[in-house]
Amino acid sequence: MKLAHSLQNIQPSYIREILRAASAPGVISLAGGLPDSTQFPLSLMKPSLQALAEQPSLFQYGNTQGFEPLLDYFGNAYQLTNQQKALVCTGSQQALDLIARAFINPGDAIIMEAPSYLGALQVFGLAQANILSVGQNKDGPDLNQLETLFVQQDIKMFYGVPDFHNPTGVCWSLWVRKEVARLCQQYNVTLVEDIPYRELRFAGTALPIASSFCPEHALVLRSYSKIATPGIRIGLVYGNQEWIDALIKVKQGSDLHTSVPMQAVLLHLLQHNEFNLHLQNLRVLYGRRYQKLMEQLKLKLPAQCTANPVDGGMFIWLTLTELADCDILAVAQAALKNGVAVVPSCVFYQPKEKQVSALRLNFTHAREEELVLAVDRLKAVVPH
Amino acid sequence: MKLAHSLQNIQPSYIREILRAASAPGVISLAGGLPDSTQFPLSLMKPSLQALAEQPSLFQYGNTQGFEPLLDYFGNAYQLTNQQKALVCTGSQQALDLIARAFINPGDAIIMEAPSYLGALQVFGLAQANILSVGQNKDGPDLNQLETLFVQQDIKMFYGVPDFHNPTGVCWSLWVRKEVARLCQQYNVTLVEDIPYRELRFAGTALPIASSFCPEHALVLRSYSKIATPGIRIGLVYGNQEWIDALIKVKQGSDLHTSVPMQAVLLHLLQHNEFNLHLQNLRVLYGRRYQKLMEQLKLKLPAQCTANPVDGGMFIWLTLTELADCDILAVAQAALKNGVAVVPSCVFYQPKEKQVSALRLNFTHAREEELVLAVDRLKAVVPH
Repeated sequence: MKLAHSLQNIQPSYIREILRAASAPGVISLAGGLPDSTQFPLSLMKPSLQALAEQPSLFQYGNTQGFEPLLDYFGNAYQLTNQQKALVCTGSQQALDLIARAFINPGDAIIMEAPSYLGALQVFGLAQANILSVGQNKDGPDLNQLETLFVQQDIKMFYGVPDFHNPTGVCWSLWVRKEVARLCQQYNVTLVEDIPYRELRFAGTALPIASSFCPEHALVLRSYSKIATPGIRIGLVYGNQEWIDALIKVKQGSDLHTSVPMQAVLLHLLQHNEFNLHLQNLRVLYGRRYQKLMEQLKLKLPAQCTANPVDGGMFIWLTLTELADCDILAVAQAALKNGVAVVPSCVFYQPKEKQVSALRLNFTHAREEELVLAVDRLKAVVPH
Repeated sequence: MKLAHSLQNIQPSYIREILRAASAPGVISLAGGLPDSTQFPLSLMKPSLQALAEQPSLFQYGNTQGFEPLLDYFGNAYQLTNQQKALVCTGSQQALDLIARAFINPGDAIIMEAPSYLGALQVFGLAQANILSVGQNKDGPDLNQLETLFVQQDIKMFYGVPDFHNPTGVCWSLWVRKEVARLCQQYNVTLVEDIPYRELRFAGTALPIASSFCPEHALVLRSYSKIATPGIRIGLVYGNQEWIDALIKVKQGSDLHTSVPMQAVLLHLLQHNEFNLHLQNLRVLYGRRYQKLMEQLKLKLPAQCTANPVDGGMFIWLTLTELADCDILAVAQAALKNGVAVVPSCVFYQPKEKQVSALRLNFTHAREEELVLAVDRLKAVVPH
């Protein structure tokens, strides 16, 4: 049986190979976007996990939109208006996929920041979107480039990760957020705001989400993988009621609904009076690991390696500035051979796109002493 | 933001309205395809649910293909060959969706039995397949029609529900299974064999799955919603390794992977030494309810209402034979008004297709005394 055309362009995912190799014994992995499983709030989740067996109604078929008490909680927590609606998804990855399926025809133009989240590239690739790129500055997407694209073409949506971007760690400034919102309104473009790392801020002050400046032109994606646990697969999308209704239709065909027991456990966790303390502890720990990795990179790597400072999230983007023509894939492969897994920048771009030579380094999964060792191993393979 | 073309043809789902109304107080619902939640094997699941909080690794990101110990179990249970592979899905609904996305281009011809499972109609509709229909006899699809379609057109797949078809309850005979397999081999058509009700046989002898006669031309979909619980959202697809690899690619973009804690709980349940006893009890209970509903229908409804006998599954298909031009939607609406929810045949056909006037009656959710009352209420609205 022949594959559908939409699948024939999907490249074999090098990152999956890396992630497989990264779990080999002796390898320190800075490759995945994994939270630290020793920090999972399982003690807070334990009572609700244990109570599940007494609640048969949670094991029956559920509503496609989500478990109602959880939807109520989200409605309050994110102050949804009467024009807005929320949909619980099987991870925020599913929200992205539903958006692409509900709104994108093959050839429709959309914009992403370059480099960008691999899972979004996959989803928009599957939908056969015409993916256009906008470059990033240190405070967000290049607004001139963005407006030029909005003017020149009929753009359906702009997908952005304003809080601690994956892979670059960039956080949009308040001004950029307002400007992006203004441009989306002016040119009638939907802002798809993906904020899985938003709660992982360990420095500076939280900024309003960009969508708050153009709520009627936005869809917001939230993840509970970084602050609760990824294995339960729960994400959220909310926005304009009509758009969410379209997503619900597609979700019904996709998987009927998301696991109800897992939704009930998440609700209990989010309402737990020690949940905020858990988040604070997580931020402190990840902040310390970030500092350690940053310090080691500055101390040990050659000057032409630049690590962008971040205020949160999970990643440092290490650009090999003066080495723009270096084979970054070869560097990552050499690193893996030397016992440290990192992700080369090439996987975060569309093929043939202008690329920066860089490595994405995760600092939330490995312990501090492993981070030190990882940089030693990296140092040995980075070109001087 | 405009909907994608693929969504513009999706009809508002009348069945969702019915299911909503069916949960109103005082209404007896024979509408949904719900198992009886009082029978969920939660006591068998309790130990593994309670142990979850001690196993952080289950809450980390998992493999897209599935939780490895569960995949191993399935490999043994279904005797997969070296050429075959399995993929755990977020319900078997997702397996169907992945198959459509991975293999169907808009306009590709596929065949379904008519009437057919609504969720499959939705999925193939979203994929913009050219859906052709084959009629059903009492022992399965009409083989002459099927072969004629295979000869006349380039058919990509034949989607069938050989064990206690939804909505008709038809079970393919051994001969039909072999013939369908032979035809699929001869004309190089993939058999997509969906068997969610297979384990719910309360009479007769289990037949080999049709795919066992053409394993290299088949994808098999299994559900744990009817024998374990639906809320955990776990289904399975297996077949040809290359095809499953394609499905894994699409699943990665769709939701990364299915909830790992729920996969671990399902594995424990399937391995529990009392699980078979649970299944036996379930079959006895559902068999008794089927007998009661059948007896009541024969006793109370006019002779032109024909209830097809079944050996298992969840549904009786009540055809209003002599009333072929009756407005079956109006009958279902009148029934709902009179306190009994049923599903009219029209929702199981493509629009404009030649339709039988019938009602789908579920017998697994309501208790025996409710079934008696339901038939009284139905009697009052069925045309004489």
